[in-house]
Amino acid sequence: MFGVTILGNNSALPAYDRHPTCQVVTLNGEVFMLDCGEGTQMQLAKYKIRRSRINHVFISHLHGDHYFGLPGLITSLGLLGREASLHVYAPTPLEALIRPMLNVANAWLPYDLLFHPLTEEGVILEEDNFLVECFKTIHRIECWGFLIREKKKPRKINKDTITHYSIPANFYDRLKEGEDYITPAGTVIENSLVTLAATPGKSYAYCADTLFHEEMAAKVHGVNMLYHETTYLKDLAEKARERFHSTSTEAGKMAVLACAGRLLIGHFSSKYEILDDFLTEAQAVFPNTQLALEGVTYLV
Amino acid sequence: MFGVTILGNNSALPAYDRHPTCQVVTLNGEVFMLDCGEGTQMQLAKYKIRRSRINHVFISHLHGDHYFGLPGLITSLGLLGREASLHVYAPTPLEALIRPMLNVANAWLPYDLLFHPLTEEGVILEEDNFLVECFKTIHRIECWGFLIREKKKPRKINKDTITHYSIPANFYDRLKEGEDYITPAGTVIENSLVTLAATPGKSYAYCADTLFHEEMAAKVHGVNMLYHETTYLKDLAEKARERFHSTSTEAGKMAVLACAGRLLIGHFSSKYEILDDFLTEAQAVFPNTQLALEGVTYLV
Repeated sequence: MFGVTILGNNSALPAYDRHPTCQVVTLNGEVFMLDCGEGTQMQLAKYKIRRSRINHVFISHLHGDHYFGLPGLITSLGLLGREASLHVYAPTPLEALIRPMLNVANAWLPYDLLFHPLTEEGVILEEDNFLVECFKTIHRIECWGFLIREKKKPRKINKDTITHYSIPANFYDRLKEGEDYITPAGTVIENSLVTLAATPGKSYAYCADTLFHEEMAAKVHGVNMLYHETTYLKDLAEKARERFHSTSTEAGKMAVLACAGRLLIGHFSSKYEILDDFLTEAQAVFPNTQLALEGVTYLV
Repeated sequence: MFGVTILGNNSALPAYDRHPTCQVVTLNGEVFMLDCGEGTQMQLAKYKIRRSRINHVFISHLHGDHYFGLPGLITSLGLLGREASLHVYAPTPLEALIRPMLNVANAWLPYDLLFHPLTEEGVILEEDNFLVECFKTIHRIECWGFLIREKKKPRKINKDTITHYSIPANFYDRLKEGEDYITPAGTVIENSLVTLAATPGKSYAYCADTLFHEEMAAKVHGVNMLYHETTYLKDLAEKARERFHSTSTEAGKMAVLACAGRLLIGHFSSKYEILDDFLTEAQAVFPNTQLALEGVTYLV
């Protein structure tokens, strides 16, 4: 399962029961948190997401609506007796904001809290089945987007054909990696005869807060699902530009430019109670668009 | 109107849709906030309390469940265009935790944010109709309680009797202060003949987080309403003591010792889903007790 659950879809000012930004990405049992606005720990409880499963938190930038929920989450995990390390990837100043809060509270954490400052674009986390890259966006202050890539899965043994050949079982892992098998007599058994094609890995890009800029398309090219912010509708394009935000039309354009499979839009301004126009506007440019709604999981 | 509205009644770990500590006190149009746990700005919206009316925030101590909502409230008030000063009364280190957050976000506030460090017990705010005192509690870290006193109201002119005497209207304010009137001929008209007794001012004490200790009774003696924390039930009295918290029985004892008019109890541990036993236990000691329930306003 590779899915994104929305816990907060609103911009700076909470309104209409919409919360500041937070998303949770589930990828084959790993749980990543993207941004952590105020109230995130309550949203986790509301949608029954186990806090203990989160090992990696990625913070795009240091506007409060993207991280004011993090101190509460960190201390609550401590009270719950967490022992596994928690990794926080964020702009450099974050650690210096949070450590003093823990010190003043005389709070002892039973787990290691590890900050990883974001300094340059590229891979920031890699494990067997996935990797996470960060890339710069253009915002009023330093801001990063994140790209989560599932790695290409190995080929599968073809159970229907493998029994026709005498291939030792301890060679199966090499077959899965694409190797041919050569029998003791020197006969080559081509890999494609005994395996099935690998499933290509999927990818999700989270573009955080950003001014629309075409150069971003190259950074997120070909993702299966693209999340792009849309603080305003197109009639406020000028305001969006002034504040380093984007409109729904621009979010749609980015999905087209990046050849994304699907588009998810969020970070709605509190000016808007009804969200329908965001969807209509983006779909006019890129039909395969959905609104990021709180409590909904979107499969990548 | 002098009332206390509960926005958060839970202890450290939010649970069962109960939120970290926050109370809002309304006193003749003034609105005071007592503590400001994470999610306070959303709770204000939920219960339709206008954020703009809050001019004074009192923070008891620097455990996160008592102030992690403050950075979000401060920035949201800025986004809403607030112009009136906001006064924050809190332990000294708070300002050094919050200012850097505003700096890193490059956030400009359109209003003055003024921190008033709590250093000694006594009056910290006084205006024509009320005063606020702080007093020390005994907790794991520096912690303060707050006492809000409505001042004694002036006497009222007795409309039934005043017409029998020729007292010039510009002397009425002095009558309200209790002065007798002396006619030009030297006759003394006793004040009590032409005025009605003043209504005594009411008072509310917020005891924040505290170990039960009898000495506190003198600090809150005679209040009309006492809020006392009750993190645990009496069977966990030992645990309460270790963690510098109180039980419901102890909250009831404090109300008896302080000769309080009524007792309000809150700061329930997330161990407890059902709260009935807190009430039963406190009422066994002090019958005039109520549970502090979120969204409810208790008149002082």
